[in-house]
Amino acid sequence: MRENPVIAVDAMGGDFGPSVVVPGAIEASRQHGLHILLVGDTPKVECELEKLNLDNAHYEIVHAADVVHMNEKPSDILRRKKNASIQVACRLVRESAADGVVSAGHSGATVACGMFIMGRLPGVERPALSALLPTEKNPVVVLDAGANVDCRPYHLFQFGLMGDAFARDLLGYSSPRVSLLSIGEEEGKGNSQVKEAYELLKMAQNLNFVGNAEGRDIFGGEVDVVICDGFVGNVVVKMSEGLASSLMRMLKRIFTSGLLPAMGAMLAKNAFKKFAKTIDYAEYGGAPLLGLKGLAIVCHGRSNALAMTNAIRMSGAFVRKDTNARLAETILANEELTRFSRSV
Amino acid sequence: MRENPVIAVDAMGGDFGPSVVVPGAIEASRQHGLHILLVGDTPKVECELEKLNLDNAHYEIVHAADVVHMNEKPSDILRRKKNASIQVACRLVRESAADGVVSAGHSGATVACGMFIMGRLPGVERPALSALLPTEKNPVVVLDAGANVDCRPYHLFQFGLMGDAFARDLLGYSSPRVSLLSIGEEEGKGNSQVKEAYELLKMAQNLNFVGNAEGRDIFGGEVDVVICDGFVGNVVVKMSEGLASSLMRMLKRIFTSGLLPAMGAMLAKNAFKKFAKTIDYAEYGGAPLLGLKGLAIVCHGRSNALAMTNAIRMSGAFVRKDTNARLAETILANEELTRFSRSV
Repeated sequence: MRENPVIAVDAMGGDFGPSVVVPGAIEASRQHGLHILLVGDTPKVECELEKLNLDNAHYEIVHAADVVHMNEKPSDILRRKKNASIQVACRLVRESAADGVVSAGHSGATVACGMFIMGRLPGVERPALSALLPTEKNPVVVLDAGANVDCRPYHLFQFGLMGDAFARDLLGYSSPRVSLLSIGEEEGKGNSQVKEAYELLKMAQNLNFVGNAEGRDIFGGEVDVVICDGFVGNVVVKMSEGLASSLMRMLKRIFTSGLLPAMGAMLAKNAFKKFAKTIDYAEYGGAPLLGLKGLAIVCHGRSNALAMTNAIRMSGAFVRKDTNARLAETILANEELTRFSRSV
Repeated sequence: MRENPVIAVDAMGGDFGPSVVVPGAIEASRQHGLHILLVGDTPKVECELEKLNLDNAHYEIVHAADVVHMNEKPSDILRRKKNASIQVACRLVRESAADGVVSAGHSGATVACGMFIMGRLPGVERPALSALLPTEKNPVVVLDAGANVDCRPYHLFQFGLMGDAFARDLLGYSSPRVSLLSIGEEEGKGNSQVKEAYELLKMAQNLNFVGNAEGRDIFGGEVDVVICDGFVGNVVVKMSEGLASSLMRMLKRIFTSGLLPAMGAMLAKNAFKKFAKTIDYAEYGGAPLLGLKGLAIVCHGRSNALAMTNAIRMSGAFVRKDTNARLAETILANEELTRFSRSV
């Protein structure tokens, strides 16, 4: 835990690279008192820095020469691209030169480098990607959002514990309602993986487990944490993004299809903007990979500067609140249950 | 195949029972030349019939005395409620007194009675519930939408074959783009179940397999059939329903939050209605359980009369086009591949 967290930012990541990441990171430093390590190609990073107001910004450049392509396999990047910005950034955390990493680059590579370079917290079986989704009320945490497919029931169990710690510390929910994504509300509904995880979650220490949630419950805001296998979670997150964009496009088409609707849309312009802001992923920053010795936050490839600033701010809060200590505690308190389940 | 299909309608099913099902069924008969067997409690059905215009309607009442409760297990209903309307309806198909069944009742019971009373078409491993979802372009078929959890790869393979036959015959797509729901577009992305199913689908006879689709692709309208495990499919279908309703409620709240937005909403009232109609499940009727000797269509519990009419119309088209013959053909043409995969 540090008063002034040091965040290593993958300056080369994302669809727009340094042109978006560097201003987002500098803004996070200025607004939130964070020390930023800009990891990437020095000349390119410098070129972006020249355009910015750097008053009150604390930063250094850490050079990283290798370039990662989006179609490369995470395992290949891990093995062959020792000087890729994401690898260099994760090593800074391992060597205690930084507290966390934020990247909008290749998400598979960020997950792999986080897991294998930083390593897992003691007792954590599988780190989990934790996505924040907007709902009618407060944001909901969905985990795992894609780091682990083919999960065992005790993995889902630990996702619940980690999601709880995250929702308490970072979202300020006092007793997060933790739910298990299934295909019916009643106990006993679901596939074999979910049914076994249900049994474990019921017995968990210090967890407000509220039972199964169905797909239709996610966006009503009646639960705070939704646990699922990484395959299902990735489908859920991508689908919610896709459906929201599709609905917005359909609405737009209808509102531009005639004079009256067009006038209506003009009058309601600000209301529309407010709505778009509510469902904008940029407001939420990124998805933390929970369970690491340190922290890695995976941002959307399309992230704009605001999304980067928000993700870096979140990583700062994570360090200041020492969320990893809370996470390790709850994992430890439930260690026997995990071990028992793993052995059967 | 009959010119005038006979459809057994579960008159007692759904949140509103005969008051909605009977008028929906009579309308389907009048508009689409179908012969309807109204299966349920005779006095209750008669009471609803008295309120209706029955010109050109062809129907009979088939009495069924048992009442099914929503919290009963499908297996218990199958074993103990021999005179439940859904059981009686499925027996009518088995005895060739009807061609198909439509029910808005207990969906688990409909699936169980369909599978065990009607039985499967030769070669079909698992019948699949096939939901139609609205997209920006044409509706997409998602299957399995919840009849089978814990699927094997060759189950997914057969879902693709059945979805293709359905999309050709019932939706009129000439060469349906069949996709496999996964967490990345490239081959090799997904869990082990999906990766193995991919291999089979690539080798399928007479199938336009276009590879993986991600959650975000479903609603853009770029694919026509989406294959997934019943657990995932059920989450997808319920989530799309929940998210669409949540977004509509959020929009409504924003549009009633001030004078200008409210005036805008008034001007755009018809546009809104058109939008709501586009995403209204009632326009799509119900989800057929494909792969049976006969047909069972599962309707939403909240179905209104229009949804019932549409579902019954769909079952009529299914019979008239003899979709089961097409389905049996494609299953047979791919039998060796299925058998090979099952044996490994």
